[in-house]
Amino acid sequence: MTAAELRIGVIGAGAMGSDHIKRITRRISGARVSAVVEPDETRAQTAVQNAPGAQAFGRIEDALEAGAVDAVLIATPGFLHEAVLLPALEAKLPILCEKPLTPDPESSWRVLEAEQASGARRIQVGFMRRFDPEYRQLRELVSAGTAGELLMVRAAHRNASVPEQYQQDMLITDSVVHELDVLPWLAGAELRSLEVKLPRRNSLTPERLQEPILVLMELSNGVLVDLEMNVSVQFGYQVTTEAVFESGVARIGENAGLQLWQAGRTGTGVDADFTTRFATAYDEQVQRWVDAARAGLAGTGSFVDGPDAWDGYRVAVACQQGVKALHAPGTRVEVELPERPAFYR
Amino acid sequence: MTAAELRIGVIGAGAMGSDHIKRITRRISGARVSAVVEPDETRAQTAVQNAPGAQAFGRIEDALEAGAVDAVLIATPGFLHEAVLLPALEAKLPILCEKPLTPDPESSWRVLEAEQASGARRIQVGFMRRFDPEYRQLRELVSAGTAGELLMVRAAHRNASVPEQYQQDMLITDSVVHELDVLPWLAGAELRSLEVKLPRRNSLTPERLQEPILVLMELSNGVLVDLEMNVSVQFGYQVTTEAVFESGVARIGENAGLQLWQAGRTGTGVDADFTTRFATAYDEQVQRWVDAARAGLAGTGSFVDGPDAWDGYRVAVACQQGVKALHAPGTRVEVELPERPAFYR
Amino acid sequence: MTAAELRIGVIGAGAMGSDHIKRITRRISGARVSAVVEPDETRAQTAVQNAPGAQAFGRIEDALEAGAVDAVLIATPGFLHEAVLLPALEAKLPILCEKPLTPDPESSWRVLEAEQASGARRIQVGFMRRFDPEYRQLRELVSAGTAGELLMVRAAHRNASVPEQYQQDMLITDSVVHELDVLPWLAGAELRSLEVKLPRRNSLTPERLQEPILVLMELSNGVLVDLEMNVSVQFGYQVTTEAVFESGVARIGENAGLQLWQAGRTGTGVDADFTTRFATAYDEQVQRWVDAARAGLAGTGSFVDGPDAWDGYRVAVACQQGVKALHAPGTRVEVELPERPAFYR
Amino acid sequence: MTAAELRIGVIGAGAMGSDHIKRITRRISGARVSAVVEPDETRAQTAVQNAPGAQAFGRIEDALEAGAVDAVLIATPGFLHEAVLLPALEAKLPILCEKPLTPDPESSWRVLEAEQASGARRIQVGFMRRFDPEYRQLRELVSAGTAGELLMVRAAHRNASVPEQYQQDMLITDSVVHELDVLPWLAGAELRSLEVKLPRRNSLTPERLQEPILVLMELSNGVLVDLEMNVSVQFGYQVTTEAVFESGVARIGENAGLQLWQAGRTGTGVDADFTTRFATAYDEQVQRWVDAARAGLAGTGSFVDGPDAWDGYRVAVACQQGVKALHAPGTRVEVELPERPAFYR
Repeated sequence: MTAAELRIGVIGAGAMGSDHIKRITRRISGARVSAVVEPDETRAQTAVQNAPGAQAFGRIEDALEAGAVDAVLIATPGFLHEAVLLPALEAKLPILCEKPLTPDPESSWRVLEAEQASGARRIQVGFMRRFDPEYRQLRELVSAGTAGELLMVRAAHRNASVPEQYQQDMLITDSVVHELDVLPWLAGAELRSLEVKLPRRNSLTPERLQEPILVLMELSNGVLVDLEMNVSVQFGYQVTTEAVFESGVARIGENAGLQLWQAGRTGTGVDADFTTRFATAYDEQVQRWVDAARAGLAGTGSFVDGPDAWDGYRVAVACQQGVKALHAPGTRVEVELPERPAFYR
Repeated sequence: MTAAELRIGVIGAGAMGSDHIKRITRRISGARVSAVVEPDETRAQTAVQNAPGAQAFGRIEDALEAGAVDAVLIATPGFLHEAVLLPALEAKLPILCEKPLTPDPESSWRVLEAEQASGARRIQVGFMRRFDPEYRQLRELVSAGTAGELLMVRAAHRNASVPEQYQQDMLITDSVVHELDVLPWLAGAELRSLEVKLPRRNSLTPERLQEPILVLMELSNGVLVDLEMNVSVQFGYQVTTEAVFESGVARIGENAGLQLWQAGRTGTGVDADFTTRFATAYDEQVQRWVDAARAGLAGTGSFVDGPDAWDGYRVAVACQQGVKALHAPGTRVEVELPERPAFYR
Repeated sequence: MTAAELRIGVIGAGAMGSDHIKRITRRISGARVSAVVEPDETRAQTAVQNAPGAQAFGRIEDALEAGAVDAVLIATPGFLHEAVLLPALEAKLPILCEKPLTPDPESSWRVLEAEQASGARRIQVGFMRRFDPEYRQLRELVSAGTAGELLMVRAAHRNASVPEQYQQDMLITDSVVHELDVLPWLAGAELRSLEVKLPRRNSLTPERLQEPILVLMELSNGVLVDLEMNVSVQFGYQVTTEAVFESGVARIGENAGLQLWQAGRTGTGVDADFTTRFATAYDEQVQRWVDAARAGLAGTGSFVDGPDAWDGYRVAVACQQGVKALHAPGTRVEVELPERPAFYR
Repeated sequence: MTAAELRIGVIGAGAMGSDHIKRITRRISGARVSAVVEPDETRAQTAVQNAPGAQAFGRIEDALEAGAVDAVLIATPGFLHEAVLLPALEAKLPILCEKPLTPDPESSWRVLEAEQASGARRIQVGFMRRFDPEYRQLRELVSAGTAGELLMVRAAHRNASVPEQYQQDMLITDSVVHELDVLPWLAGAELRSLEVKLPRRNSLTPERLQEPILVLMELSNGVLVDLEMNVSVQFGYQVTTEAVFESGVARIGENAGLQLWQAGRTGTGVDADFTTRFATAYDEQVQRWVDAARAGLAGTGSFVDGPDAWDGYRVAVACQQGVKALHAPGTRVEVELPERPAFYR
């Protein structure tokens, strides 16, 4: 299947780009990082070490010319996006572009024109919240209409703190930008207006910032959004969305799945079986074993990273005694093991 | 890096084996399914279709002889494990063996002997709960000792229902078996005794079963476990563990992370930043885009499976107006879009 | 103590007045209802039957003239308050007046003048939320400052539905009125401005209403409030308040006490001992026993409404056997009772 | 209504007795404390001061002879109960006796005989959990059968710590005693056997105690109970009960009402209207006002303990402006108050 494996060029190897490189290399199937485009050589070298088989390039044009990529993932700062998008479109490559597409409507429009000229929709924008299971569940509830029409959305986007380079306008362009995409998507409507209200300023926020802010949005279907944007909340990271429907209220973002108030009760769903409850555990188990097996075969480590055969034996003894206990309710059955062979210590 | 990629032979292509094949193919890095060993030809063919590049074999010996695998993952019924483990050990392969290692202590002991003869620990057993993030958090709490010593474990293992082939002894050998491994691991101690108590029987359980049962376990460090094993609970799947410490109580398994009662309060942790809150969303986004990009390049689908460039443009307009609103608090700023090009409809 | 017992005249015997009559008669110490002022004779008679020893009057002036009351509780419709407040002030009585004081500032001002003329503050207004334990806890958090200054309040006031007489302006005068009192009280500041935003209308609300609404309030200390007022939410009754502080967020109103997000965790308090956990149970127990004892003495019922002496005996036997079990861990001790005497069946 | 008011003699004025004296005096209607029987004179005097109109007696016989009581509430240590119960029965008084009835079955049986000789059931025993709203809800769920038959009860009774006089046997006679009454009551069955298991000992418990303990109980209908009794849990007080039914699980005791797992969901009820949500607030409001009014009339304090007329005026202004804002959506309406009269500062 090597033929069909997608060779991705990651453009930009900062925090976001590095994260995507690890993701593609470790958790994504059908793709690998074949090129890293990054002018900073130190960053480029580090990135390439995390992506076996990848080449480093200083400019996207060089990577394209070398025929080194089937697709590009753009993770540079937003003001550089256009300069990468245009040659990538010209090369007719599939593109995943971190948000924002570009920092202003004029440059975004030029990108749209270039994409149309390329003959196909090739650009996907990295508004990743649309892929969050809770947002998807909430959107299904909107579509299904089982709680009536959506009337209001009451949202909060809270960061513990922000880095030094974070400026006032980034409250909108870097943070609220997520809600500007996902809330209309959730509500199935277009954004019609925006308004900002200023609450009391947080004295713990950097001097250059005036926040939190309250952002009011009107959508084309009449839905009203009030969003608290707060980047100095200190306690942690939280993105909550409360959707007010005609006959119920739903909330996501509090680590408990979709919580629904309806018909005199409030609650959440329960796992149906082990496949959801232990999904992460199964993946983690197999990944760790694969890593250990490779290390073992390469002679650089143990073959096992988890319960070993001695654990298997121990449990076999326990099961045998457990079955005895099951057949003699109320009787205490002892569990004794032979001495553990030195091999397993 | 093809050289180092682990070629896995999956032995058994039933429900569990198929699930592992999909996992290795879709979500695990550094490995691929190179062989499927399955006597049932229909199953074998289906399995192979889900694992591009894999070959089907009827017997493990054939796969070994063909040099088709670097490692094996055993997912046959437990009574067949020994017959697969022994040749795999002889071939000195890394092995991930679904639980149980084997169904009884005698055969497990034979496996231990064969592994020792092979010169290295090569077998990992599939007690996947040890990789569950909540169990790991709870184990860290036990080790850290910040709530004092562990005194009791109060557990529940509840299935909505069980399939036709599920027999009474499987309450222990198929279900409690998980706790027989994970609870001693959690408590850092050996199992010393087992006792079963019979509550009132659930009239909704199949006639052949007498359950739920209460299983009492004593561990070598004095920790007492009382485990409810319940396979007809109807409402869903739930595995909860309440750990009673000297100065606090912790609970996992209710879809809320590790809940801790300590010093007059009860609560759970909060995400530190977006990397944990939206981890799934990032992975899902990139995987979907990779799949779409490959389909687009192959001419069998669209390049995009998510927000497209028009969404990017739309948000650029919204951001521009949002920044205006931010600079004029209390003023409603309209958002207007040009007509959407037909290309993007 | 009869001398000091407060003789209350309840003015108005509609739903609210009747509820107060029951409250004073059944749960309030140091007071009794001595008079009910209600022009509707049927209502008046019913009310008097629930308040042993109370007299019915058609007009407050008659009750005052008869010297029948030490204090008045006003529960008439708001537009009648002034007409009752003025003579009560003239008689220098303590007054508890259901909200609103009066329906408009002019009449309220006249009441203030009359009260000042009376020489002492005698009027308490029925904004009962200030006495809710959760609001009080939240206010203490504001005062204590342990989560920093209060910045925003995000509130929701949701009713399942409203009665026929509920009109559009009552969204403010009957419903939001509570928050108009309690939120400034909570924040320790004065209200400075109000603004209403209209979300999509709920099609399930009566035709005469346009709701839900979003009410924005600015307080004198810069705190911004966004309040969802919703009277057709169908699912039940809910009043939630989320207070955004500089270094934490607190929420009340979801039947879980004050939930606090701070320093990487979220949680609630735990009972310190049985006096809070079982406060209601103790009161209910004694009240039921008092009622039963009076019925028993009057020959109209049993002396007991709860566990009886047989239950006491039964538990004495269980305790005896329990102590035996405690002294012989791991031994099942049977509990046998003599035949239950016919007297206790 | 003086005639029918129940004159209660409280026997024993220790912690429990004092609490009951306050309860009867402050929160119970139709009764008052007319006598306190307490040999310790200091205690007796303190108690009498909290119960206006009550007389102190050294022995119950004196109180009976004086005709001072219609009923007695017994709150002495358990070993003294019999000596009080017998004369009270002879006097044919209604009795509320704190748990236990007496400390052993023999003395309890003598009490039963005396009660039968008195001709009527006159004794109620203070197992107050039966009056807890959550236990009642859970019992209704058992009776209703909507989750099938009850199969198991998994309970925990946790105290932060215990006082010096608490001895090992009191784990049963003072603590588990509550569950010995309430769990059979909940399950609708008799207790059939008891067994104690000893987990690891808590090193933080007093040296004289070996705890926590696990108590197993079998009920006559086959229901199995496993109860953790823990009196050094440090973090607070907690009594939880998890009821395992045939098609669901219910839990009470975690400050969230009755939580139910059934049919793929878990959740709790929601308030139907303000009468439940703000029940405490209404009572507290009126009690505080009554206390203030009495203090005001007696010249020993203010007439008001809560929002005053100025608050009423302030809200009248806010409502007026709020209605304006409602009629002009999107317009910020200012709220201005005249200077606050000195009278109201």
